[in-house]
Amino acid sequence: MAEITLEFDTIAAISTPPGEGAISIVRLSGDQAVQIADKVYQSGSKSLIEVPSHTIHYGHIIDPKSEQIIDEVMVSVMKAPKTFTREDVVEINCHGGIVVVNQLLQLVLREGARLAEPGEFTKRAFLNGRVDLSQAEAVMDLIRAKTDRAMNLALNQLDGNLSHLIRTLRQEILETLAQVEVNIDYPEYDDVEELTTKLLLEKANFVQKQIDQLLVTAKQGKILREGLSTAIIGRPNVGKSSLLNHLLREEKAIVTDIAGTTRDVIEEYVNVRGVPLKLIDTAGIRETEDIVERIGVERSRKALAESDLILLVLNQSEPLTLEDKNLFEATNGLKRIILLNKTDLPAQITLEEVQSHLKDEPVFAVSVVKNDGLDKLEEAIADLFFGGQTGEKDATYVSNTRHIALLEQASISLGEVVNGIEAGMPVDLVQIDMTRCWDYLGEIVGDSVQDELITQLFSQFCLGK
Amino acid sequence: MAEITLEFDTIAAISTPPGEGAISIVRLSGDQAVQIADKVYQSGSKSLIEVPSHTIHYGHIIDPKSEQIIDEVMVSVMKAPKTFTREDVVEINCHGGIVVVNQLLQLVLREGARLAEPGEFTKRAFLNGRVDLSQAEAVMDLIRAKTDRAMNLALNQLDGNLSHLIRTLRQEILETLAQVEVNIDYPEYDDVEELTTKLLLEKANFVQKQIDQLLVTAKQGKILREGLSTAIIGRPNVGKSSLLNHLLREEKAIVTDIAGTTRDVIEEYVNVRGVPLKLIDTAGIRETEDIVERIGVERSRKALAESDLILLVLNQSEPLTLEDKNLFEATNGLKRIILLNKTDLPAQITLEEVQSHLKDEPVFAVSVVKNDGLDKLEEAIADLFFGGQTGEKDATYVSNTRHIALLEQASISLGEVVNGIEAGMPVDLVQIDMTRCWDYLGEIVGDSVQDELITQLFSQFCLGK
Repeated sequence: MAEITLEFDTIAAISTPPGEGAISIVRLSGDQAVQIADKVYQSGSKSLIEVPSHTIHYGHIIDPKSEQIIDEVMVSVMKAPKTFTREDVVEINCHGGIVVVNQLLQLVLREGARLAEPGEFTKRAFLNGRVDLSQAEAVMDLIRAKTDRAMNLALNQLDGNLSHLIRTLRQEILETLAQVEVNIDYPEYDDVEELTTKLLLEKANFVQKQIDQLLVTAKQGKILREGLSTAIIGRPNVGKSSLLNHLLREEKAIVTDIAGTTRDVIEEYVNVRGVPLKLIDTAGIRETEDIVERIGVERSRKALAESDLILLVLNQSEPLTLEDKNLFEATNGLKRIILLNKTDLPAQITLEEVQSHLKDEPVFAVSVVKNDGLDKLEEAIADLFFGGQTGEKDATYVSNTRHIALLEQASISLGEVVNGIEAGMPVDLVQIDMTRCWDYLGEIVGDSVQDELITQLFSQFCLGK
Repeated sequence: MAEITLEFDTIAAISTPPGEGAISIVRLSGDQAVQIADKVYQSGSKSLIEVPSHTIHYGHIIDPKSEQIIDEVMVSVMKAPKTFTREDVVEINCHGGIVVVNQLLQLVLREGARLAEPGEFTKRAFLNGRVDLSQAEAVMDLIRAKTDRAMNLALNQLDGNLSHLIRTLRQEILETLAQVEVNIDYPEYDDVEELTTKLLLEKANFVQKQIDQLLVTAKQGKILREGLSTAIIGRPNVGKSSLLNHLLREEKAIVTDIAGTTRDVIEEYVNVRGVPLKLIDTAGIRETEDIVERIGVERSRKALAESDLILLVLNQSEPLTLEDKNLFEATNGLKRIILLNKTDLPAQITLEEVQSHLKDEPVFAVSVVKNDGLDKLEEAIADLFFGGQTGEKDATYVSNTRHIALLEQASISLGEVVNGIEAGMPVDLVQIDMTRCWDYLGEIVGDSVQDELITQLFSQFCLGK
């Protein structure tokens, strides 16, 4: 494990989602968590410093300087080591709302806490040995899960299933390397070199097979985890908004994020038979007039190129226009499904006509307003990405891009081992590749990992976690 | 107090704001809260039923039917009566995120809890006598507060300052009515009628004066509570978006709400010197092309008519256009501030020219991009609504529309008392108006209030409160 400087100052952050709700939480973690909370807490003569661990206390938060009441609260005191971070943790549950919780946070920061970086609570849980790196990453995946299946996948990882598998493989490699060392140091038998290369070859093949099996799940895992970027496109009035609203209205809408104050970055997810579609803003659907003028076209092109799936909507009650044909052209080669909308109206386009612009891609005749044919569309989306399989609940998936990349590198290293042996390379050179594989796997669980990587990883977490 | 049927079934809801965050909470309240939580909680052999009140417990939530793990959690057990609702309360703190917390909620609902109606936890706190009605309403105001001042106002009300004042006035009226009864029943002295009407007149005047003083604060209170609907208008490219972004960027942005899945209802608040401006969407700022075509113009007109303040932006580096003049016309008679933007460029409009379209309304020459003159604009906005006063921190404000309406009706009843006496009406008729005033005041604190009103009031709360 890389050298890590443990920091023990006391951190604080708002740990509930931003917005109006019944309860908001300011969480503190560190040596001074209880002392700082006690400075701003009042409830008769009660002191938080003296209360037993894992107890809850009613009282008021009062600014000790201005003596102004900030809120009526419940304070949870949890002392190390049985806490999320393995440090002293205090959670102040206040009335929800933006202003109150921010004032409370400002107050504890003034009284000695430091504003936690994104993911810093979980980072401490990792640094203090409560979870390994892939488990810490699962915490964030769990929070971001868009469907039940994505949730199960993250829980599975949080429970340590992936970690266990990786550690088992590392152990295999380690034992092999140890055996190789022994063989090299004590070449008592004539056939030692043959035995050693045979062992390395066997083990390399065995581990590579396991890794490659894991990588097979990666594509599905990644989609479950990150959602499938989906663009709904079409010329005006073909029914894009209706389709979008249909998907959203069916109580399948999962989340609406607004990133910062940037008004035009809105992401919406819908759950289509377990596939989380991340609907991409495309100009002409909801951009402002001004913005459309300025960057609409450029943005749309970019959105198309980046999307995993395109739903191209046509109005089958009108003849194909030049604009429709341009859209066929623009999406050529991308993964797309064509919708012939408005089957409730007399047809002006034939299926053949549409198919002449396609190469064996799926076309669905639907009426969004009559809710006709949309079931088949949803089935097709699920099929497209899971090949009809429902996916086993308890299977160990890899879903994280970082893990996938490391597994791929580990697999390549093992390939080098095999190639090296077959090319008759000396054992000590082959060993290097085997060791590299061991390192790559170690990075997944965080056993061999750089400080900067850790910092960068946790910075992708949400605030307060 | 009206007859109220107390319900004691166990309710559950998600009590944290929706969205991704570190922690989400499912809250249960009622006789079976602990039992239901215990059915889905596992941690070795620990049973939540046996744990002491106000303690916190680590464990897993497991679906007892499928035996599937839902999440790793901390469970807070708080037993009646020292709880928010005065009933047994259990709070399950799970990993934030939409899917996990929803699964957890579904599970406790399946195991016997009922989904809480909006505001039902607070309603129980009211029905069980922990808070009165105006305090319950303050809970919601606290959550919705957009600025520090709005927060102080709500806290003040939550602490019972308004309740105390109202109860004092009601006591005055009650004592007067009692005295009047005594006088009528025992007319021992000749001048009893004169004495009685004198007493009624004095008290009616006294109470009315207090109520009217309170009503003076209402306008400011209401703005602090609800925000000032503000429309930024102007023809394309005068700098509306820049102004909006300036206000948002200055870290003054407080909240961005998305109501349901309706994509075009976005409200943003900015805090301008304690005045919460609620920025209204106007077409041409961010509507979609389609929507603008369809309802843009109509919506804009409606938004203008409903707004409390209009910021009309002109580009002073170009001559006034017909469109500018139309905007002068469209906003005529509404409360507006005119901005001559782009002072960094050579002027093509004179102040006099602009003023010829106005009646003594404020005009500010600014450069949004150079951040020039915007301080004065902010000052003007604050002045316009507080007349330069900063508002006393501890003053009792009325801010709630319901309270204001009831106070106004109470004041009218007292006016009737005075008129009746002056017109020489019999005391028993005058008494009726005095009693009505007592009832109106009672409705504010919830001492005299109808079931339907209570139901309707709490239904405006957010879920989980």
